[in-house]
Amino acid sequence: MTSQAPPPAYRRLSVEERRSQLLDAALTLFAHRAPEEVSLDDVAEAAGVSRPLVYRYFPGGKQQLYEAALRSAAEELQQCFAEPPEGPLTRRLGRALDRYLAFVGRHDAGFSALLQGGSVVETSRTTAIVDGVRRAAAEHILSHMGVEEPGPRLRMTVRMWITAVEAASLIWLDEGKQPPVEELRDWLVEQFAACLLAAAGRDPQTAAVVRGALALESGQGPIGALVRRVLPVVGDAGHLL
Amino acid sequence: MTSQAPPPAYRRLSVEERRSQLLDAALTLFAHRAPEEVSLDDVAEAAGVSRPLVYRYFPGGKQQLYEAALRSAAEELQQCFAEPPEGPLTRRLGRALDRYLAFVGRHDAGFSALLQGGSVVETSRTTAIVDGVRRAAAEHILSHMGVEEPGPRLRMTVRMWITAVEAASLIWLDEGKQPPVEELRDWLVEQFAACLLAAAGRDPQTAAVVRGALALESGQGPIGALVRRVLPVVGDAGHLL
Repeated sequence: MTSQAPPPAYRRLSVEERRSQLLDAALTLFAHRAPEEVSLDDVAEAAGVSRPLVYRYFPGGKQQLYEAALRSAAEELQQCFAEPPEGPLTRRLGRALDRYLAFVGRHDAGFSALLQGGSVVETSRTTAIVDGVRRAAAEHILSHMGVEEPGPRLRMTVRMWITAVEAASLIWLDEGKQPPVEELRDWLVEQFAACLLAAAGRDPQTAAVVRGALALESGQGPIGALVRRVLPVVGDAGHLL
Repeated sequence: MTSQAPPPAYRRLSVEERRSQLLDAALTLFAHRAPEEVSLDDVAEAAGVSRPLVYRYFPGGKQQLYEAALRSAAEELQQCFAEPPEGPLTRRLGRALDRYLAFVGRHDAGFSALLQGGSVVETSRTTAIVDGVRRAAAEHILSHMGVEEPGPRLRMTVRMWITAVEAASLIWLDEGKQPPVEELRDWLVEQFAACLLAAAGRDPQTAAVVRGALALESGQGPIGALVRRVLPVVGDAGHLL
């Protein structure tokens, strides 16, 4: 009888894979406990490796591992919104959200803890890191809009949406990753479109962005579908025109 | 020559006024420093009163004052969204936002610090208090919608908007309270309407809420104005229908 061999407990990983495995384990542990309550033994155990192996990768010990774990999470999050500036805005945003939500789903409790202030004794540092990620995401989005000098309205719209995405991610984790991730992604894209459209009513810069973005959308795309779903809901509101 | 006498340095306040003056002073101090770095002398100085007077109101000393300051801020915030269930939803929401933004403007840095995790050593406690306020605000809004058992979509929409309002408040404070508060309020109401409308496209419960809410709006109200401002922006997007 030939059967698939079980994966060895100590699978041979590349240096990069091992490093990121250790960082993931550390991020989860540090997210749940204060750094002084996490030992390198805990990290080794969580990653299923030996203590000396952890030291080989992080000779600076716990402090080095802690900093590296936070930085690696922040870098990965920032990369989510890096997307070629081509095609409809909703498609680019959808791809960025796919990566972002994959990160959220993978880190789960670690992500919640990171957003909610991280470790209790390191609040100001984690807050600065999380704020850096938010700023980077906003810049990515504004550059996809082709806006070089965003005015206060457009900036506020984008930053409000980013915060709303964080809230939605936390709720999604709370509710056992319901709705399915693709549905959540489409929902967030639609919320973005709606917020931008309302803002366009008051801000000429946002209106120009919306006009440009709509020209790239097709009737088969998410905006066309959104419009067709929403029109029947407002059908009786002719008295508002 | 008769001229207005300058207000006495030690104006006679009612018990309630004095108590809330002390709580305001305490909230601002605790928001900027760890409780162990705030003395009752600091609170007395900030409120322009004597130390014994602070003790007369808070015989339990600093700990009592700290807890009372947090609770009082939370209660005041929760009350913002208590509004008679009459008239168009946008008017009720606008009034609630007027009160909320007045609170934000009055507490300024204290509000930012409270939202951003409060004192560094009391993160979990302030987080719980702030979360309680968020939950209460969401319940108020859902009850104004006449919804007794909100489904996940409607709940998520409301909670995303509440977080977005917090983000907008912090940005508003950062930017020296610009735009003017009435403009920010109208903006937040419009963002709410847009988010709800997009959600209505996917969720029958939200669609029913939107239909009911639109029937109460008039052409002269904020939704009518929003629709008239937005229509020209989407005028060239007939290809999406």
